Amino acid sequence: MNELELIRQLTAKLPANEYSRVGAGDDCAVLDLGIPGSDLLFKTDAVVEGVHFSKSTPAELIGRKALGRCLSDIAAMGGKPVSVLVTLALPGSFEPKSIQTIYDGMASLAERYHVSITGGETTSNPERLLISVAAIGLVPKGKAILRSGALPGDAIFVTGDLGGSIHGKHLEFEPRIREGEWLAREFKLHAMIDLSDGLASDLRHILDQSKVGADLHSDSIPISRMARLQARAESSAKPPLLAALTDGEDFELAFTVVSRDAVPLLDAWKKEFPEIRLSCVGRISNKTGLRLSDKNGSRELNLHGYVHFAQS
Amino acid sequence: MNELELIRQLTAKLPANEYSRVGAGDDCAVLDLGIPGSDLLFKTDAVVEGVHFSKSTPAELIGRKALGRCLSDIAAMGGKPVSVLVTLALPGSFEPKSIQTIYDGMASLAERYHVSITGGETTSNPERLLISVAAIGLVPKGKAILRSGALPGDAIFVTGDLGGSIHGKHLEFEPRIREGEWLAREFKLHAMIDLSDGLASDLRHILDQSKVGADLHSDSIPISRMARLQARAESSAKPPLLAALTDGEDFELAFTVVSRDAVPLLDAWKKEFPEIRLSCVGRISNKTGLRLSDKNGSRELNLHGYVHFAQS
Repeated sequence: MNELELIRQLTAKLPANEYSRVGAGDDCAVLDLGIPGSDLLFKTDAVVEGVHFSKSTPAELIGRKALGRCLSDIAAMGGKPVSVLVTLALPGSFEPKSIQTIYDGMASLAERYHVSITGGETTSNPERLLISVAAIGLVPKGKAILRSGALPGDAIFVTGDLGGSIHGKHLEFEPRIREGEWLAREFKLHAMIDLSDGLASDLRHILDQSKVGADLHSDSIPISRMARLQARAESSAKPPLLAALTDGEDFELAFTVVSRDAVPLLDAWKKEFPEIRLSCVGRISNKTGLRLSDKNGSRELNLHGYVHFAQS
Repeated sequence: MNELELIRQLTAKLPANEYSRVGAGDDCAVLDLGIPGSDLLFKTDAVVEGVHFSKSTPAELIGRKALGRCLSDIAAMGGKPVSVLVTLALPGSFEPKSIQTIYDGMASLAERYHVSITGGETTSNPERLLISVAAIGLVPKGKAILRSGALPGDAIFVTGDLGGSIHGKHLEFEPRIREGEWLAREFKLHAMIDLSDGLASDLRHILDQSKVGADLHSDSIPISRMARLQARAESSAKPPLLAALTDGEDFELAFTVVSRDAVPLLDAWKKEFPEIRLSCVGRISNKTGLRLSDKNGSRELNLHGYVHFAQS
């Protein structure tokens, strides 16, 4: 049993109360506090030096990323972020003026999405910087887009381009707040998730929780320019398609809708967000598992999202 | 400028929005999300191995403390905790079964106060365990007890006994949820705070934010049995009164009320909470500063809460 499975088991039997709607296992918790017309979204996320950023990452981008990851999870519920609290765990050697710069990076992203930063704590973490962000948001009552609602026949969509995020996007991605809210308002989405571990891995959460499978079409996976450039520049780099499927931290949205909505959605999207690619990458199936097809046929993607593409 | 002052400066100019009621600088943030009759309380707090607990602290007590600290902050607003999210930052060597034990410690405290744990994240922190807890709570609309409302003439009260918490209570304290809610409902409290850094230090937050001073009476400071025992056992230990004023992590409540309410409050408290001491320790003054008086007169407590008691 790995830690992820352990946490899943643990969190399945955690104490709930009359306010709980959705607990552990989705992008955010959902609570009904009696807000007229709205449910509350609640989320925490942490970034750690040496794991999510390096010693040389500019402090402003560390702050931006720490906040952006949490906002992305609220976007993935179709929600609107409202307020965040920040905990900085600082090594002893940390430059006090870098704290200001971290906050600057968070504040400019927060202001863009009209999010308040309602408090900041500091504590000590002697060996490395760690930032934990807690966020609350609002979503129309009963309308949070969960991971568990995908239905066989649904079209699967992905925003933006995938792969190669480590070369910069993981620090400067734009959380898809406006897009997520618009999608949830304008269309009846069945399931949604944000891509933190890669499409092949994150889509599996939707499949598991919806008890369905999926078929992806390799030609329709939106491969980022960076994934292509890297594959060209380094012979040891992942093939671009593999990078798009398995690289983490794209923070794009993946979602499913009934197939008859696919074309109207694509048309409306192009008018609303002409700068951002939206791709229909496959279809939900009643046959469990995740498959990738190309002109040579269909094959299973393995559990960890990695698949070896034999040259044919 | 120390880090605390830096954070205070930083957080004073953080982005706010129309939901913000109270931002950084109180025990919790307060937000008005339109919940009929209630405001939302929002708080995060972290505990770190080597700072708030040791490698040998039982995992169950680590979990209990991590949650209890957050609940104590909600109590200090006169609020009711509703739901928490937990982030575990784990060293590589961490025993997976200890994760279960940490959660057990949190769950039993959460259940006692009818609080849901609506999610758990894990991340990596290679050198030491760090637990960050985010909590939301509810408080009657406009009735959160802030640090800024103390008025000259107010009586200053403290729950429980103070000092020597490091010898056990810091892990097993009972967050004063029921007491805080009852106090806020039954009396018009002017200001309240929970004691995390010691009365001499935490009371100063009330004084600063209320722009008042205070006179404490040394005879009325409720010194814990542990602080007395320690002073007797070790010649190098703090004198008991000093321990009660300056030891951290008692997680008792300090609050002020108009002086005419002092006696009725003490009487009602004794009926409601006969097991828990409540002490009137002094009075709010319009003369700024914090003073301690005994039979030999009155002297200033210095900025960090430490004061040397010369033998007279």
